[in-house]
Amino acid sequence: MSGPIAVDAMGGDHAPDEIVAGARRAVDELGVDVVLVGRGADIGDTLGLELVEASEVISMSEDGAKSVRTKKDSSLVRGSELVRDGGASAFVSAGNTGATVAAALLRMGRIKGVARPGVATAIPVPGAGPTVLLDSGAMADCQPSWLMQYAQMGSAFAKIRFGVDRPRVGLLSIGEESSKGNQLTKDTHALLKELDGINFIGNVEGREMMSGDVDVVVTDGFTGNVVLKTLEGSLRTIVNAVFGALSGPDAGAAAGEALGLLAPLAVEFDPDTYGGALLLGVNGVSIIGHGSSSATAIVNAVGVARDMVDADVVGSLAAAVRV
Amino acid sequence: MSGPIAVDAMGGDHAPDEIVAGARRAVDELGVDVVLVGRGADIGDTLGLELVEASEVISMSEDGAKSVRTKKDSSLVRGSELVRDGGASAFVSAGNTGATVAAALLRMGRIKGVARPGVATAIPVPGAGPTVLLDSGAMADCQPSWLMQYAQMGSAFAKIRFGVDRPRVGLLSIGEESSKGNQLTKDTHALLKELDGINFIGNVEGREMMSGDVDVVVTDGFTGNVVLKTLEGSLRTIVNAVFGALSGPDAGAAAGEALGLLAPLAVEFDPDTYGGALLLGVNGVSIIGHGSSSATAIVNAVGVARDMVDADVVGSLAAAVRV
Repeated sequence: MSGPIAVDAMGGDHAPDEIVAGARRAVDELGVDVVLVGRGADIGDTLGLELVEASEVISMSEDGAKSVRTKKDSSLVRGSELVRDGGASAFVSAGNTGATVAAALLRMGRIKGVARPGVATAIPVPGAGPTVLLDSGAMADCQPSWLMQYAQMGSAFAKIRFGVDRPRVGLLSIGEESSKGNQLTKDTHALLKELDGINFIGNVEGREMMSGDVDVVVTDGFTGNVVLKTLEGSLRTIVNAVFGALSGPDAGAAAGEALGLLAPLAVEFDPDTYGGALLLGVNGVSIIGHGSSSATAIVNAVGVARDMVDADVVGSLAAAVRV
Repeated sequence: MSGPIAVDAMGGDHAPDEIVAGARRAVDELGVDVVLVGRGADIGDTLGLELVEASEVISMSEDGAKSVRTKKDSSLVRGSELVRDGGASAFVSAGNTGATVAAALLRMGRIKGVARPGVATAIPVPGAGPTVLLDSGAMADCQPSWLMQYAQMGSAFAKIRFGVDRPRVGLLSIGEESSKGNQLTKDTHALLKELDGINFIGNVEGREMMSGDVDVVVTDGFTGNVVLKTLEGSLRTIVNAVFGALSGPDAGAAAGEALGLLAPLAVEFDPDTYGGALLLGVNGVSIIGHGSSSATAIVNAVGVARDMVDADVVGSLAAAVRV
């Protein structure tokens, strides 16, 4: 690896303390070189880590593109510049997703030939490898040719990140037949059917997101983000309902034992397990952590960033779209 | 009620036997008059119910609009004609959703002033009333003005069907701010903000689908159908995982007791509970059952059909869009 991993100390619901703690643990546990980016006055104790000062902060609710244009000394912009200029080998942020995408796009730039970047998120599947969903939020309005490149990049990413030999790529639609869907999916289906270099298995439906029957699910960033948050919400609702039933007034000692049996499931479904999403298509490694990232999530994200740099993910993605 | 409820004997994964059994039970348990529509030779014993013969069958995988144009003597087309001609007061089918929508649209016609119909599906929310999601699959490509009418019709439907006094209507998007979303949601948000007669609470995200914080979620039929199937898939995955953990080799007597505590949850999350979706905007009551509908689901659907006819849902929807 050519430089430290830059970590956005200001990004996420638990910034800066939880983020700084995670960055410190990443150094200690993974032996990775880490540099913080953020406002020193807010951070306070950097726990011995180097700090690159950035005087501005982009909040979670700000408009992504606009905030990046106006806040040039924000941690998101400075972190992306570090990667561009070689001061860091990758950038990890649990901050505003739209602003992270915009900063990476404007400062790192796109991989040559890539029309638009896409966020690739790993959805946990119990008893199987995860399903990669992209775009899960970079581009709300998409063109068929962008989705075609998401299929190429997603396939390359699933190979590198999860070691899937010949990733099964599905197009998210509302019926298995190529005639089912909206205009975007119909046009995209026609492109993917003729595309060499990927293992396109056709349309897939929402119920296959956690089935293990598909490795990469391609969709536009609006639909992908809605799906991601729908999954999050339903998981939380059901987990709460199950734990509620097992700790209510009718529950006895048996319930406590049952909760012990269910504990491993909670780990399997935990979004922190996979250490954040990767922004595919920009000219650098940009990891987007969940807004609620814990210190452990940051450790995992730094580990993934290191792995992706070592595996030259950017080079592989460039090759995938050059086919 | 002015006539019997027509039930499509040929529609659904368990047709005709399970459907006919459900129709029979509806007569016995609810005291509702029911007539079957379908191919007598396939049905065999009608369990004493009247049969309206329809010689053709539209399968679950056929293209909706095309199959309705070519199979004029199918149960889906004949059932819709019965409602149009006054031979039935409502039509219930667990068959091909696209074809059911097309048949209702072509035969019953639209309510005056309605641009496009939408499917309203009730999503179960533990410990609260359901969330109505529409459109959940009628129109894959939508215009902002159609979504505006979905908001009006969905609000009226939530009042009639679930007794919600002042339904909270949310627009499904990828951020709470009006600036977040794709072009369709941005344009729709602007229309809904200015609309009188509904309680528009702004954008909602996928994670709010099962939160109980919103009564009616408005979206295009592509996104809605993806969300619906994503919820179905994630519920099934988690329920399987929980039951798997509680019946594995490590599970003892405690697990059996825990499963007993969890049983009521299974009922709460069962899609059959709400007796199918209603197609809003056509000039008649058309109930769309889940493809996997059991006899019990058909009983519930017939009950909902009867209630919707008695409550003059078509008149209320017509009034809602006339505002």
